[in-house]
Amino acid sequence: MLEDKNTQKTSLAELGEFGLINHITKYFKLQNPSSIKGIGDDAAVIDASEKQTLVTTDLLIEGVHFDLSYMPLKHLGYKAVMINLSDVYAMNGVAEQITVSIAVSNRFPLEAIEELYAGIQLACETYQVDLIGGDTTSSTKGMLISITAIGKAAKEDIVYRNTAKETDLIVVSGDLGAAYLGLQVLEREKQVFKVDPNNQPDLDNYTYLIERQLKPEARKDIAALLKELDIKPTSMIDISDGLSSEVMHICSQSKVGCKIYEDKLPLDPQVISTCEEFELDSTMVALSGGEDYELLFTVPIADFDKIKGNPNFSVVGHITAENQGLNLVTRAGQEIALKAQGWNALKDN
Amino acid sequence: MLEDKNTQKTSLAELGEFGLINHITKYFKLQNPSSIKGIGDDAAVIDASEKQTLVTTDLLIEGVHFDLSYMPLKHLGYKAVMINLSDVYAMNGVAEQITVSIAVSNRFPLEAIEELYAGIQLACETYQVDLIGGDTTSSTKGMLISITAIGKAAKEDIVYRNTAKETDLIVVSGDLGAAYLGLQVLEREKQVFKVDPNNQPDLDNYTYLIERQLKPEARKDIAALLKELDIKPTSMIDISDGLSSEVMHICSQSKVGCKIYEDKLPLDPQVISTCEEFELDSTMVALSGGEDYELLFTVPIADFDKIKGNPNFSVVGHITAENQGLNLVTRAGQEIALKAQGWNALKDN
Repeated sequence: MLEDKNTQKTSLAELGEFGLINHITKYFKLQNPSSIKGIGDDAAVIDASEKQTLVTTDLLIEGVHFDLSYMPLKHLGYKAVMINLSDVYAMNGVAEQITVSIAVSNRFPLEAIEELYAGIQLACETYQVDLIGGDTTSSTKGMLISITAIGKAAKEDIVYRNTAKETDLIVVSGDLGAAYLGLQVLEREKQVFKVDPNNQPDLDNYTYLIERQLKPEARKDIAALLKELDIKPTSMIDISDGLSSEVMHICSQSKVGCKIYEDKLPLDPQVISTCEEFELDSTMVALSGGEDYELLFTVPIADFDKIKGNPNFSVVGHITAENQGLNLVTRAGQEIALKAQGWNALKDN
Repeated sequence: MLEDKNTQKTSLAELGEFGLINHITKYFKLQNPSSIKGIGDDAAVIDASEKQTLVTTDLLIEGVHFDLSYMPLKHLGYKAVMINLSDVYAMNGVAEQITVSIAVSNRFPLEAIEELYAGIQLACETYQVDLIGGDTTSSTKGMLISITAIGKAAKEDIVYRNTAKETDLIVVSGDLGAAYLGLQVLEREKQVFKVDPNNQPDLDNYTYLIERQLKPEARKDIAALLKELDIKPTSMIDISDGLSSEVMHICSQSKVGCKIYEDKLPLDPQVISTCEEFELDSTMVALSGGEDYELLFTVPIADFDKIKGNPNFSVVGHITAENQGLNLVTRAGQEIALKAQGWNALKDN
């Protein structure tokens, strides 16, 4: 994984900016009728017909958000798209377009950029999203990726963060904490590799964790699953910074409180075993570990029967009155205040 | 200009990411009815009603696209918005929203970010554009700004690059080359300052050039001017990389050739005098100097009477058959092939 198998190295300066853009975008085909004009003009043109347009953007910086010593470029490209699509799905919308801007220092040959775009293309094909624009330039240090995702939804289908109601159930899709633990495993292997480059890591016990870190999938499927169950969430957000942080966004914007039950947090067996090995508290990891890209939403309590026992969803708590605050009910039945330990990009540096 | 008058320095880490976002966005108010939801959810929501949506994005990196030793942060914020709006206007659209993502190293205090956003806000107010989202993070080196602009236009009003026709006139708004010369003046002053920090530069002869470099204005007014004249361009592009480069985009996409007349290039008197002083060829500067943010468009030859003598526009040439190539007709009446010398970000590093 740490080895660069590319033997060919083509300098980006040889190609020039327009040459590079042509080269990396020629395999991208527009798939959505709403993508009227993609790359090649001053601006792309989109026709959302009668729907509303959703816009979200994220910026990823080498050394802050990703480490190329264990993040293969193809995975990075894929993940960068997922992070943005996840935000569109969290509005209950359909993502249809992305713009991708990258800056790279001259240490990256063309083949590296091709790998990155191969991941972006795979994401576009898998999620039926069109690359419609972007910018490509040089950086003085490292790589950065700025993606804007554009989606659409009928006005009445959009789900905001500020509309959770008292007594609503709090639900999460999938499980929590695995991506964070995957990162811990990869960081540990990086340190081992530094000491002994010939050491062959045995990662069999961590495959799920590493996949969640290196190749997360945005939950495009949730909207359809909820429609099948005849459920419209009262509020929704994606879990990128950890459950605690996202619950707090919903509660503060909706002016409500909440109770989250420790014993209801969905944990994969690998999360539990790896937390033991790393001597980490699995509840803390589930609450504050970032990058799960699951969805957190609230539903009316009347929908409980529709959702209980569904393997895609876990009811982790309920909304309370604002003056009751935000609380975690421990396995022992104790109530403690929920703390925001969300990943804070600005404090990391 | 080179002096930092801020005495207060607030560390960004003290505020945290969400604190910073709240702090810098609290003075931004949504102005457009199409901006349904701005900052504060997973994605922004836009309603373009029956119109088509235009999307464009640009990435600016410190040390590649701007130099903070002579570019005040407020101007940088303003210019970064202009660069993007210009692309929307070049589609004959109305810009209504932007997202702004920034990354800054810890050498920037909060007050620096406030200055940057003061410029962004001034641009938003002046051009009636809403800031609806973005991302704020740390960088390992320097500052970077990634902006996406969103606009709208009726389908029948959008002007593409690939629709210029033989015999069409080639028209530019405003004048050319001043922004490039402004940069040359500022670079020279920077070198002088390095040698003698007490030297007071006399920039009176270059005020227009420096303004064009530090505070360009996107040509929002052109769409209305053309409507008044009852002209719909057959193709349009904004001049960010120099006239030559932009004409080439129009010609290659429209599969036509062109003749550009040297004696028709619109030059400000300061451009002419400064070219003499710097021993630069003013034609080369007009053709290849970037960052003018004027509009280049083609109109049917039948519209010549509508546009001739209009102080906002210069007819600089006409479209020819593709097999005639792209040519510059010199003052001496000689035809020479037009060369692309557009600013190439990837070759600069």
